[in-house]
Amino acid sequence: MLEFSYKNSDISIIGEENGLNIETEFNEYASQISDIIKNLNQRKDKPGERLQWMNLGYNEETLWYVKEFASLVEGRFDNIIVLGIGGSALGGIAVTEALLKPYWNLLTKEQRNNFPRIFFLDNIDPDSVNGLLDVLDLKKTLVNVITKSGDTAETMSQFMVIRDLLQKELGDEYRKNIVATTDKKMGILRQLADQEGYKIFYVPDDVGGRFSVFSSVGLVPFALVGLDIEKIMNGIKDMDLELKNTDIHQNIAALGALLNYLMDIKKGKKISVLMPYSNRLKYIPHWFTQLWAESLGKDGRGLTPLKAIGASDQHTLLQLFNDGPNDKLITFIRVNEFETTLEIPKIFEYTGIGYLGGKTVNDLMNAEANSTLVSLVDHNRPTMTITIDRIDEYHIAQVMYLLEVQTAIAGELYNINAFNQPAVEQSINYIYALMGRAGYDGSAEELRQKMLFV
Amino acid sequence: MLEFSYKNSDISIIGEENGLNIETEFNEYASQISDIIKNLNQRKDKPGERLQWMNLGYNEETLWYVKEFASLVEGRFDNIIVLGIGGSALGGIAVTEALLKPYWNLLTKEQRNNFPRIFFLDNIDPDSVNGLLDVLDLKKTLVNVITKSGDTAETMSQFMVIRDLLQKELGDEYRKNIVATTDKKMGILRQLADQEGYKIFYVPDDVGGRFSVFSSVGLVPFALVGLDIEKIMNGIKDMDLELKNTDIHQNIAALGALLNYLMDIKKGKKISVLMPYSNRLKYIPHWFTQLWAESLGKDGRGLTPLKAIGASDQHTLLQLFNDGPNDKLITFIRVNEFETTLEIPKIFEYTGIGYLGGKTVNDLMNAEANSTLVSLVDHNRPTMTITIDRIDEYHIAQVMYLLEVQTAIAGELYNINAFNQPAVEQSINYIYALMGRAGYDGSAEELRQKMLFV
Repeated sequence: MLEFSYKNSDISIIGEENGLNIETEFNEYASQISDIIKNLNQRKDKPGERLQWMNLGYNEETLWYVKEFASLVEGRFDNIIVLGIGGSALGGIAVTEALLKPYWNLLTKEQRNNFPRIFFLDNIDPDSVNGLLDVLDLKKTLVNVITKSGDTAETMSQFMVIRDLLQKELGDEYRKNIVATTDKKMGILRQLADQEGYKIFYVPDDVGGRFSVFSSVGLVPFALVGLDIEKIMNGIKDMDLELKNTDIHQNIAALGALLNYLMDIKKGKKISVLMPYSNRLKYIPHWFTQLWAESLGKDGRGLTPLKAIGASDQHTLLQLFNDGPNDKLITFIRVNEFETTLEIPKIFEYTGIGYLGGKTVNDLMNAEANSTLVSLVDHNRPTMTITIDRIDEYHIAQVMYLLEVQTAIAGELYNINAFNQPAVEQSINYIYALMGRAGYDGSAEELRQKMLFV
Repeated sequence: MLEFSYKNSDISIIGEENGLNIETEFNEYASQISDIIKNLNQRKDKPGERLQWMNLGYNEETLWYVKEFASLVEGRFDNIIVLGIGGSALGGIAVTEALLKPYWNLLTKEQRNNFPRIFFLDNIDPDSVNGLLDVLDLKKTLVNVITKSGDTAETMSQFMVIRDLLQKELGDEYRKNIVATTDKKMGILRQLADQEGYKIFYVPDDVGGRFSVFSSVGLVPFALVGLDIEKIMNGIKDMDLELKNTDIHQNIAALGALLNYLMDIKKGKKISVLMPYSNRLKYIPHWFTQLWAESLGKDGRGLTPLKAIGASDQHTLLQLFNDGPNDKLITFIRVNEFETTLEIPKIFEYTGIGYLGGKTVNDLMNAEANSTLVSLVDHNRPTMTITIDRIDEYHIAQVMYLLEVQTAIAGELYNINAFNQPAVEQSINYIYALMGRAGYDGSAEELRQKMLFV
């Protein structure tokens, strides 16, 4: 079960200046929302609409294909390196951080039930990459290189480095340590995978990077570290059914999208904070940042996503949230039951911290979330809360899929195309130009001219 | 050397709507800035001004006291756990992540030159805390508990748990595994440290948590993992001398503060992005978030800090930066020389990625930063750049101290007290109330009433 509460954004709680008259707004937008939901579900199978991510929960074939591969290599590798950037990494980081035992990469192989450690090399800092290569035994490492286009410069440069090292260490056997996740038909990586004989998984057509976490982009690493990808699929499927409901009162993705949209255009809330009260969920806001910013940041519009984590960020951001500009809508993610309980012993009883003894750290985490919530209401700051029962494959998939659909609906409300990223293209051409890729000399010259002045 | 470039925020580069006429502004603010700098340096030794962090670079006594302790325990511990939240953790995380070898906690003891692994438990998620306790051998672990007041609920509840476990494992010897960093005279932790016989370090008076990284709060863990804290002190000292200059053209902290301030009030840039092009610097923006948000987010004012990291976040935020609302000022941190070089082998020569062969990943990182910069200029988005020669103790201290002074000067420009956090207090009282601390019943009742509605 996943619950969604939004009444702390209502005019009755936080006043007219910052709150919305939510029931009135819902009635006003009911038919537009209903049309949007119908429309998304009708368009989703049309090529070019970039909505194939809405079908990923039903992709039984990929599910079994990935599971088969995972069981084939089970026990063979001590490490997985995922080479990918942006959407090829962020979902994977968010899900594995949430679902693997904390400090996974520090556990013994036995504590990991023989599953490998996992590393996402999603940046190209030479010191970090060299640092990781110093730590790992490449012979026992599976490299999953992920790029749909096959020519992402960051990912492919790292791949060239590691592929070369693998060949030096393993001779002709190196290809068994490589899995490529890429386009079905096109691109350099597709071609190399064929020529060199890597295992291949496909990024389906019409699934953009930031919506790809539940395609083989995410499923392959998840299965390799022992996560139950069938439960992930079930989570998405159940959530997808719920989110087909065209009644705004019954569709929490629509509610979330509409509230964000209205808070932006009517109340000047230009920043959308995502703040889970769980350390294990701390990379969900990071993944959401790309989803939300790249989808909606267009034509001068879009709310800026801000990452936060409870309870820690009460000590960094709460002052600003409460008393700075009232320009934010804060969405909490709360978890009903942590996996473990941590009891605070009854010691130091007659000191000023004696009151903590006999309670649990779980109690404290809850008290912190409640206190923050109320203190934001005290300051008339709008908030919403998504609550899940516990952190497991099913619920994490639900939350993430919910946020994907919310983003798509928000795109429709803003009347923008949520599935492209035109303002990144020029910068990528500049990179090609500076690195000497054939055909980009024009950009290089243009860039050099500009660099003289900047 | 540290360089600061701001011309990409000038009207001549990004136009009138978004750019500042920087020379004119400088002239206009020259005398106010000069007064602010003089004033800060005059006030800094007065009790209650909360400016003692400006003296930390000159605190030779603490330096030697910390070094002495570190050499005394050298080799004795495999792990350090730092218990602290907010300002007691963020500086430590930022500095150790920047300066220790990447993947430090995964290195062998030999690779770490016998220095311990280090863990910052800056959140109270029971699963994370339990997870860490599963991983570590507490007998070989030094616990550094940090709270100035001595009664921070998050930190002290964790401390009670771990102190109890230590005693169970080590009997009476447990006290040798505890170091307390707290107030010199007051508070529960001070009292316990005396009673139980922990090693104590002091958080100096008039140094707020978010300005405490170069007090014993940070220096103790830094010295314990083998960082050269003398070089850190030298970095601060040299930067402090530079920042005593009252000429706005010569004072980069003043420049940074003024540009942020003017971009906010004159050009509507409400979001201040900090984006290092180095993976090792990725927690500097996190530390900066607290520094900036808690210092300046007051009376409805303050820019919202946004964390980013190059090159990765080109794939998450650049679309929004370039084509979303033009409401951000982006500060890059660039590094002239990475510690290592990573060569891309000349393979796959006749494919579309052949152009990468023979280049270095270092080249690519630079190309990415340059391309992003120019693409932002193309879209008339204001940027500034701080450049350091390399990542080492000296330069990291310089950057962080610079940002502290910049924050203090910005506080003066906004005419707010940058050294309190009044809007967090009520929330802390609510927490005490919910956890049953004596004397907070009133808040508890108030809170319960409010919880009925929210």
